[in-house]
Amino acid sequence: MNRVFIIGVGLTKFGKHEQLSTRDLFFHASKKAIADAKIDINEIDGIYFGNLSSDRFEHQAHTAAINASNISFRHLPSTRIEDACASGGVAVAQAYLAIKSGLHDTVLVAGAEKMTNLSTPEVTDVLGTCADDIYELPHGITFPGLYALMARAHMHKYGTTREQMSMVAVKNHFNALKNPYAQFHKEITLEKAMNSIIVSDPLNLYDCSPITDGGAAIILTSEEKIKNLDVSPVEIVGVGQASDSISLANRKSLTSIEANKIAAKRAYNMAQITPKNIDIAEVHDCFTIAEIINIEDLGFFEEGKGGKAVEEGTTAIDGDLPINTDGGLKAKGHPIGATGVAQIIELVHQIRGTAENRQLNGIKYGLAQNMGGSGATSVVNILKEVD
Amino acid sequence: MNRVFIIGVGLTKFGKHEQLSTRDLFFHASKKAIADAKIDINEIDGIYFGNLSSDRFEHQAHTAAINASNISFRHLPSTRIEDACASGGVAVAQAYLAIKSGLHDTVLVAGAEKMTNLSTPEVTDVLGTCADDIYELPHGITFPGLYALMARAHMHKYGTTREQMSMVAVKNHFNALKNPYAQFHKEITLEKAMNSIIVSDPLNLYDCSPITDGGAAIILTSEEKIKNLDVSPVEIVGVGQASDSISLANRKSLTSIEANKIAAKRAYNMAQITPKNIDIAEVHDCFTIAEIINIEDLGFFEEGKGGKAVEEGTTAIDGDLPINTDGGLKAKGHPIGATGVAQIIELVHQIRGTAENRQLNGIKYGLAQNMGGSGATSVVNILKEVD
Repeated sequence: MNRVFIIGVGLTKFGKHEQLSTRDLFFHASKKAIADAKIDINEIDGIYFGNLSSDRFEHQAHTAAINASNISFRHLPSTRIEDACASGGVAVAQAYLAIKSGLHDTVLVAGAEKMTNLSTPEVTDVLGTCADDIYELPHGITFPGLYALMARAHMHKYGTTREQMSMVAVKNHFNALKNPYAQFHKEITLEKAMNSIIVSDPLNLYDCSPITDGGAAIILTSEEKIKNLDVSPVEIVGVGQASDSISLANRKSLTSIEANKIAAKRAYNMAQITPKNIDIAEVHDCFTIAEIINIEDLGFFEEGKGGKAVEEGTTAIDGDLPINTDGGLKAKGHPIGATGVAQIIELVHQIRGTAENRQLNGIKYGLAQNMGGSGATSVVNILKEVD
Repeated sequence: MNRVFIIGVGLTKFGKHEQLSTRDLFFHASKKAIADAKIDINEIDGIYFGNLSSDRFEHQAHTAAINASNISFRHLPSTRIEDACASGGVAVAQAYLAIKSGLHDTVLVAGAEKMTNLSTPEVTDVLGTCADDIYELPHGITFPGLYALMARAHMHKYGTTREQMSMVAVKNHFNALKNPYAQFHKEITLEKAMNSIIVSDPLNLYDCSPITDGGAAIILTSEEKIKNLDVSPVEIVGVGQASDSISLANRKSLTSIEANKIAAKRAYNMAQITPKNIDIAEVHDCFTIAEIINIEDLGFFEEGKGGKAVEEGTTAIDGDLPINTDGGLKAKGHPIGATGVAQIIELVHQIRGTAENRQLNGIKYGLAQNMGGSGATSVVNILKEVD
């Protein structure tokens, strides 16, 4: 079986880009990734593109083809992947399969989303399409409400506190200070995080990830190809994807996300490791409660102990298991289709030693967990230092 | 390398389904495909779903996860593919890669689109998102206009006639008479086809495919798995995908679609055959001129000779190279995401001998060509009888 390696990464700044559309965000991130990989663009033989809804945000579908012809004249096969907010992570998984199949050698995987051109109510409506339009949305609930239900259940069952959720925001804002690509460079105090305006009780403004424009791209290649390259490759050793009922009402639990557990199990099995091997993780903190649930589902902490782990500093950048060292969705920003790809980029930097002033030591295994909606899709990718 | 086989197919009726949503169309087609394959649903280990825009048609994204949990409790990885009107054919190609990679054994590939719930102007607007929203749509052009430009150029350069285009419609309506799943069972005369109302000169109503609800599904599996099955498998021996500029203005030609030629070359090379080996083809006749251009691009006829081939009956069901024996997009209907999967289904029926009263003899190789927009994406899949 072919082994698959990441040889280049590229990000745009996350934030508000008034003058850039999705096609521009794709282009700038991809050019950087190609330069970082030190390859000729003609070596790329396929493109995967994660995007939630240029259809709704920009009245533009068929974006995979636009991207392909904007970056290359070589009529590359180019495929858009949409699995809600997991689109980027699933695009990485698909590119992994494409190389594993032996039919592709070097693949560009990108994700991008242009969101700030719509108003907040309009964005909420677009994001709402990732929840169940038959069984959830007609009742008036959108994502802050869905995650608020999960937060309340977690508080009730395990004693998780509002403070612990706010501590996730404080930590991720702190981490983002050292990430030049992050949307926010604004340290916040626990007091400020606790006392922000309520969005959907118990979640307030600082419990929610922002609306963001951004693009992210990586280059994947086969074992055969890396031999001739002048780069530090990082290997993808585990890929797991799983689904669940889109509506919360049909899930087994409100306090954990089964798709996370199954996706993680599949990825750990492929990588032949356990959660204990993971040195750093990027998890999908669309809301602060999501980070707490995710680090439990991934097996890093016992169920109900995630909030405590945050409180004790275990997940801080100087803790035993740093989580979201780039600021996470909360402070780096959450341009939907780009998010899953950007998570991988942070892991690549930390593993190969290019994370600059947020560089950690001794990172061998990194895990990225990217999920769609309230958890109906989860994808886990595990990266490993090349010995 | 693993070989990949189709072991089951299922279609819903194409047409107007007032009571069914995309999730229902997926479900009904998939259940039929699973029954046809005579497998237990628990043997499926992944799902690919082709869909253009439930986002716009039904206010519902994240459809891959919905489909997965509606058909199985096993948390299957499920991925939506969107490459405009080529979404279905590309989903088949992705599933092929997934099995080829060795990481999947048995995959359900489905496509579905629910369109008739919107008005014709609204549908035209949704389909318009597959053209270029920066360089084409703002000028007022939509797909009938884009294909009308191609038709005029083809008429001017090669002498292709209005009659020849209408003959495509007459042929495809005739073929659909024998397809119980087709939207239209209505034989039309050349006179009627020629004298219908103009949509975008020179294209009239009978030159355009209709608005359709429908679902299509197939089951793919590996060589290892077919040994134990009680079905007649059909092998996928060639897969080719290519892209081009989304806007016609940036293409090399108005009279041929370069992405078709490149996708076809890739598929023929993989299958190690030439166009002469093909016994039957399903091509993307979203407009009658598209069928004429496609059969030239695929190498069946010289450039400029496609119209003549239709006129001479070469592409009729009793001709030397039958094209669109199921009625094509024109008369079977064109539920966008389902179309590329449904093309494969007709080929499977013809190759394994289950095409009932439209069954042809001696079909060894079948080719399906599915394209997005005005041809910025093209995907060609080649199927072969198992010796």
